[in-house]
Amino acid sequence: MPLACRLFAFGEKPPAVRVESILSTAPAPGEVVLRMLAAPINPADLNVIDGTYGELPPLPATIGNEGAGEILALGPGVENLRIGQIALPLAFGTWTSELILPAKNAIPLPDDIDIHQASMLTVNPATAWRLLHDFASLQPGDWIAQNAANSGVGRAVIQLARHLGFRTLNVVRRPELLDELRALGGDVVVTEEVDLRREARALCGGMLPKLGLNSVGGSSALNIANALAAGSPHVTIGAMARQPLKIPNGLLIFQNLAFRGFWLRRWKENAPAAEIQSTYATLADLLHRGILHTPLQQILPLSEAPAALTAAMQDKRTGKILLDLQA
Amino acid sequence: MPLACRLFAFGEKPPAVRVESILSTAPAPGEVVLRMLAAPINPADLNVIDGTYGELPPLPATIGNEGAGEILALGPGVENLRIGQIALPLAFGTWTSELILPAKNAIPLPDDIDIHQASMLTVNPATAWRLLHDFASLQPGDWIAQNAANSGVGRAVIQLARHLGFRTLNVVRRPELLDELRALGGDVVVTEEVDLRREARALCGGMLPKLGLNSVGGSSALNIANALAAGSPHVTIGAMARQPLKIPNGLLIFQNLAFRGFWLRRWKENAPAAEIQSTYATLADLLHRGILHTPLQQILPLSEAPAALTAAMQDKRTGKILLDLQA
Repeated sequence: MPLACRLFAFGEKPPAVRVESILSTAPAPGEVVLRMLAAPINPADLNVIDGTYGELPPLPATIGNEGAGEILALGPGVENLRIGQIALPLAFGTWTSELILPAKNAIPLPDDIDIHQASMLTVNPATAWRLLHDFASLQPGDWIAQNAANSGVGRAVIQLARHLGFRTLNVVRRPELLDELRALGGDVVVTEEVDLRREARALCGGMLPKLGLNSVGGSSALNIANALAAGSPHVTIGAMARQPLKIPNGLLIFQNLAFRGFWLRRWKENAPAAEIQSTYATLADLLHRGILHTPLQQILPLSEAPAALTAAMQDKRTGKILLDLQA
Repeated sequence: MPLACRLFAFGEKPPAVRVESILSTAPAPGEVVLRMLAAPINPADLNVIDGTYGELPPLPATIGNEGAGEILALGPGVENLRIGQIALPLAFGTWTSELILPAKNAIPLPDDIDIHQASMLTVNPATAWRLLHDFASLQPGDWIAQNAANSGVGRAVIQLARHLGFRTLNVVRRPELLDELRALGGDVVVTEEVDLRREARALCGGMLPKLGLNSVGGSSALNIANALAAGSPHVTIGAMARQPLKIPNGLLIFQNLAFRGFWLRRWKENAPAAEIQSTYATLADLLHRGILHTPLQQILPLSEAPAALTAAMQDKRTGKILLDLQA
């Protein structure tokens, strides 16, 4: 009998989750069944559990925003996929050993792909890829400024920007991360104490960044804005500091910055199917070639999901916490 | 001998301005001389005088951002204008009885146009026109939300929006303005105390505004943002409250609002010449037809510019203070 990690109430401490048996059902026409293999615990999952996320499922709900599996069964009329193929589900509720979803939301991958790495592809690397493409027309050599550079999105931005020929000015809270992110490919890495309004031009060799990425909010978001060239977009994707942005009027009127936001779920719902397919095909290829890599801290069995959540809530992790969905 | 109102230092109280004689010079090739007739005192002028504007001239400087005059002399090679023609200067330093400028920056108008009204056309109505065209694809029936609705830009937005078939949700600070702005054509007019997050949909007949215009900053800017439909632009053009914008992260990430800024000087410098010409031709036509009208409080001679500035700094004016540049 398949298992799933289900949430019964928002905002409880410890989290109101329980791993329990679910019914195995046959796929309807146009659907596929995935035998789920691995899924990470992302910050967005923790925000769903504590009830602060922008969109919350009706309860009880199987949670989880991404993962990887292999195709176990095809519903009538599904022709472009085959049983045994590795696939990524674009669906909510991935912390389960068995998942039914529309075939169009199952993204097939090469069979020799690293399953653990693949299970972390649809959220952070996809976010980073869209951030680098949808807001500014960047040319090779252009700079990007980002905070929370050690986050999942931040690390993917560093790796993808380097691959695309862009350069990154990275801000982190903890000094012990400086060397690690430089080794990952960050061109410049500094701590939050550096005043980018004064320092950005010198740090970026006389240029100013043309895209700002903000996962923190508050004064850190403003520091990124102060680094940008006139007319640049400043894109908020997260709010780790839980502080609103404070934007001096002059940055809007005279500097002509554009403060935007990005939410991957909106992209998945609104983007043309071809754009979604090509984004994930590109990312799978980059993963395959070792250009994208996400550090892992620990893999825990689905049956130990509550312990895995506790581990994922720790502040100073060295990598993602992953659920092994068949253990 | 021509006269000009010149500024000698920023931030002095009373303002360090003096009306003095200037040299009359002949136009160079491609230039024209305007015999200036009228110029308003705008908030941006007061910000230049107190040194807080985004771009400040080298001192001493003749000040003034707009006005109207008639063509007094044409430099060699100027063919599309004629002596005696009414024209608006797109130039800084309009508080003078005689102004030399490139012919391409002199916008000719019909000779029977109201000179006082025309002298107030290039800043506020032009700003309002671009705000209604450059940020959102509005359809007739769509709503716009704005604060400082009694400002020069706000009144022009009300008049132009009505002409274009858009509807306006207007916010003002003082209750005594409610009836006046309704009479001007504001579809809904409320005071700052109304919580638009709760009330906007009811006020707008079940719809939400698709464009937000902010001339105030601080909590008023947020109130406008909270009124908007998901995905809408929120454009800052002024900062009367001298408070930064405070933007909750969710308005960026989940509501997908885009916080932008507009500065007329940037538009005048970067827009294609044809767009600038057609904007002012359209506005002159609307002025001619009585669709655009700016209330006047008082007309003072250029020689009394210091007294005119004092009048313009009063909080509760009933209209613009204008300088008669030939008196």
